[in-house]
Amino acid sequence: MADTPRFSSAPKVSGPRDIEQLIDLMARLPGLGPRSARRAVLMLLKKRGAVMAPLARIMADVAENARDCRICGNISGAEVCQICSDDRRATGEICVVEDVADLWAMERGQAFKGRYHILGGTLSALDAIGPEELRIPALVARVVDEDVREVILALNATVDGQTTAHYIAEVLDTTGVSVTSLAQGVPIGGELDYLDDGTIGAALRARRRF
Amino acid sequence: MADTPRFSSAPKVSGPRDIEQLIDLMARLPGLGPRSARRAVLMLLKKRGAVMAPLARIMADVAENARDCRICGNISGAEVCQICSDDRRATGEICVVEDVADLWAMERGQAFKGRYHILGGTLSALDAIGPEELRIPALVARVVDEDVREVILALNATVDGQTTAHYIAEVLDTTGVSVTSLAQGVPIGGELDYLDDGTIGAALRARRRF
Repeated sequence: MADTPRFSSAPKVSGPRDIEQLIDLMARLPGLGPRSARRAVLMLLKKRGAVMAPLARIMADVAENARDCRICGNISGAEVCQICSDDRRATGEICVVEDVADLWAMERGQAFKGRYHILGGTLSALDAIGPEELRIPALVARVVDEDVREVILALNATVDGQTTAHYIAEVLDTTGVSVTSLAQGVPIGGELDYLDDGTIGAALRARRRF
Repeated sequence: MADTPRFSSAPKVSGPRDIEQLIDLMARLPGLGPRSARRAVLMLLKKRGAVMAPLARIMADVAENARDCRICGNISGAEVCQICSDDRRATGEICVVEDVADLWAMERGQAFKGRYHILGGTLSALDAIGPEELRIPALVARVVDEDVREVILALNATVDGQTTAHYIAEVLDTTGVSVTSLAQGVPIGGELDYLDDGTIGAALRARRRF
């Protein structure tokens, strides 16, 4: 402790050791740094019974029970997730997303009634991420085995996302399934003045009769 | 779900129910809102073994074992905290702070070698917080029972903090103990241009020979 620099930005705590460990672990969460982790832990310490104990319990539960759905890759409490085991969602449409976060975002939109396929990332030569790492063979197998009419590519509108989309479209070409992708254009509530040039260009190219 | 407004700012998740509950609980932490709680839980879900399980375990441990030190009010894993049970800290000085967070801040400063007394807040007529709620009688008892030479008031430089400081100084007057408070002035590294008028005024009044 004696050699801690005087204006250190990493706050030290001299509470008991397990409280320090708790702060260290909390500080690893996105959105929390060492300072806010400390504040969060203090709040938890003050509400040990009402918040901290239930939070610890449910976190242990989820850590133990959560697993990746063996069909789509979604995280759920069972071998096959809620969506894959729901017969009403066998619409013949599979929405391909990069990540669980994107699946959640799609579900919040409440517009898609079919099933999902989570890639787990995007193709990247730099990071040595090829088709095998991305569950793309599993997607092809599903398209062949299940009664799939349409694959909707809902990948991020980034370079990597679009590269991956093109690759998937190419791979699926032989299966004869219809491959579509989300429309690109002006977001609802969006103001032109705040949009980037690329979005305006895409929206113009994809213009439609009013 | 059908009546969720379309531009709702509270994101819905349609993961399994316990994941939703976990997000709800995480969103109660200071510094995390519903969106960042969702991001944090996703990160935890991806690192179930490396981060989530240990975090849940240590959180359960702390929730079960943490308790308020019966002498000073500090949170620790024992009935008497590390500081109160450390004989080297029986310096005859008691530093009075509002909150555990303030004790941690003082300890990070590594300047104080004595013991603490945590009030648990400040006097507030509005919130019906009187001396009894603030462990002020316990402070007076400590001053009388322990061999205390000096009580250092390290309360926040707010109206409530200073009101409480004055009250404590008055109550301790009869015990004959020396009562001091933290100096007010320009913070180390502070630029005058960015300081509020009150601080500049206080620093000027408390000026000292160079």
